[in-house]
Order: sequence, then C-alpha cells, then structure tokens
Amino acid sequence: MIERPSPIRETDDQARGTAAALLRSARFAALAVTHPETACPHVTRVGFGLSPEGRPVTLISDLALHTRALRARPQASLLVGEPGPRGDPLTHPRLTLAVQARFLSRGEEGHAAVRARWLADHPKAGLYADFADFSFVVFDVIGGDLNAGFGKAFHLLPEDLRHA
Amino acid sequence: MIERPSPIRETDDQARGTAAALLRSARFAALAVTHPETACPHVTRVGFGLSPEGRPVTLISDLALHTRALRARPQASLLVGEPGPRGDPLTHPRLTLAVQARFLSRGEEGHAAVRARWLADHPKAGLYADFADFSFVVFDVIGGDLNAGFGKAFHLLPEDLRHA
Repeated sequence: MIERPSPIRETDDQARGTAAALLRSARFAALAVTHPETACPHVTRVGFGLSPEGRPVTLISDLALHTRALRARPQASLLVGEPGPRGDPLTHPRLTLAVQARFLSRGEEGHAAVRARWLADHPKAGLYADFADFSFVVFDVIGGDLNAGFGKAFHLLPEDLRHA
Repeated sequence: MIERPSPIRETDDQARGTAAALLRSARFAALAVTHPETACPHVTRVGFGLSPEGRPVTLISDLALHTRALRARPQASLLVGEPGPRGDPLTHPRLTLAVQARFLSRGEEGHAAVRARWLADHPKAGLYADFADFSFVVFDVIGGDLNAGFGKAFHLLPEDLRHA
C-alpha cells in the first residue's frame, strides 16, 4: 500500500479565481437531487446561470422529475466546468457545489432581475421562460469542492465563492 | 395554466440506439452519490467506460469522496452525453442511469477483462490504473431516462440498455 498525502490543498486566490471563472462561464450543469420515489441520487442536465448577486440559478419545468425532487427536498448538488473536445477530461477544472434550492415565484422580489439576467445569458430561453410550468430556482451555496486537475483539490466555503 | 401532455414517449428502437450510442462514446460522466456525512446528493466527474458485457464502468480512487460514498451506499446515478461546443446544450441528447455500484477486487473474475477494455478506451489511465488506491467499479443498471431533446423523453428498462 503506497501512502499518499491528503489531496486537499489550502484554498488560495488562484483557486477562488478558478471557481469564479467556472461559475461565470457555465451555461449548463449537472444537477443531482434525491429521487422522490426511490430516495436514490438522480443526476440530470439543466441550464445554469447566475443571479445578479452571483448565486447559481436554473430554469426548470414542473414536467421534469428533478423539479418535483427539489420541491420535496431542496438539498442538491451542482457540477460545472465542461471539458473541451481535446485533452484528458479528468484534468479539466470542475466545481461541485452543495446547494439548497429556493423557487422564485413570479412577482416575488428578485424575480424580474433573475429573469432579465437569465435571458441575457440564454437568449433562446425566451421561447419558454414564461411558460406556466417553468420556474426560476436560486441556489444558496453551502460549500464547494474544486478539482483543478490531478492533485489540485480544494474545499471552498461560501465566502470563497462570493465573487462569481 | 396551459395543459401539456406527458413528455414521456413510448420507447422505440431509435431511442434504444441513441442510448447505446451515448454509452459507447462516453469517456467521462457525472456521478451522483449520497454524501456519506450530510446524506445530501453530491455530483462529481468520473471517467466512464463499458465492461465487455456492456455495463457502465468507472475507475476511482479511495482518496475521492465519491468512492467512500459508494462504499457506504452503492445506489447512484450517472449522466452521459456531452454537448458539443456549438448549439443549445439542452437540445443535445443525454442519458441518466439509476445504478448500483459493485467494486471489482484485483484477481476477482472479470477484473482482467474490465481492466483491459478500460486501458484500450482510456490509454492515459495506464499511468495510475494499478495504484493501490484505485478500483474499478461496475454498475448494474436499474433503469434509464433518455432526453433526446425538447419533447423527446423516454424511460428505459435494463433490457433497453443491453446493446451498448
């Protein structure tokens, strides 16, 4: 058995900057929820953006299982940071967030600003963003795990992720 | 409120073929597990391949939280099907699998064949595949959800996914 040191490094400004860049550039994410019937993990692809305050946001339909799952249990996880077509995908930086989902009602404070920012970042979403079954969800961040390549892992606190 | 029909279509050979193609071409996946301390969903990127029998496989390190999570609770979920650099990522086909993880021990039946297939599909993994902290995990598939674009959703059974 080869003994190897803990892979978690001390968080520095470079790690915070990498995480912020991943959050700012992501237009979709993997969303993991608890399946409402089986209580097992369930991961899907969702659109991804940021609120004007830099919180993760998605726009999801009541027809989707992940939406029902988040209404039943708002604790979830998001993965952003997509490998390009070249190179080893496991050396590409990515960020896992532990989050708590909060559905934004139409007319609620913040809804108009979140909607405007979303439509600026996702122009095609104008086709369905106002359908009655679609909702914006803002995610409060509990913590993050940044993997910036082999041997470059960091635990991030909410304050490390406030500058996205 | 606009009433819209269920988005789930009847599974056909085209859906089975799309799912098989996604599984065969994927070299990485999003893996959702239950976090062993918080019991919340936790999603990370892992390498992805198939066993000689067409079952999903990954190669993961004991240093990673997802490995500890799978040893504590083998029920998990995988997402494959990566959008290219162009077009709307939410119209790109993707497949969510509900799976149960099974760790393969060195010397166990099937280990050599899984390792050989993995190294053929992931040539760079030869650098670390035999490290003592790395294990191959084979996933038994419980079911799948194929999203082949807006309005094209299918529930797949294990037998629909046997031809990858």
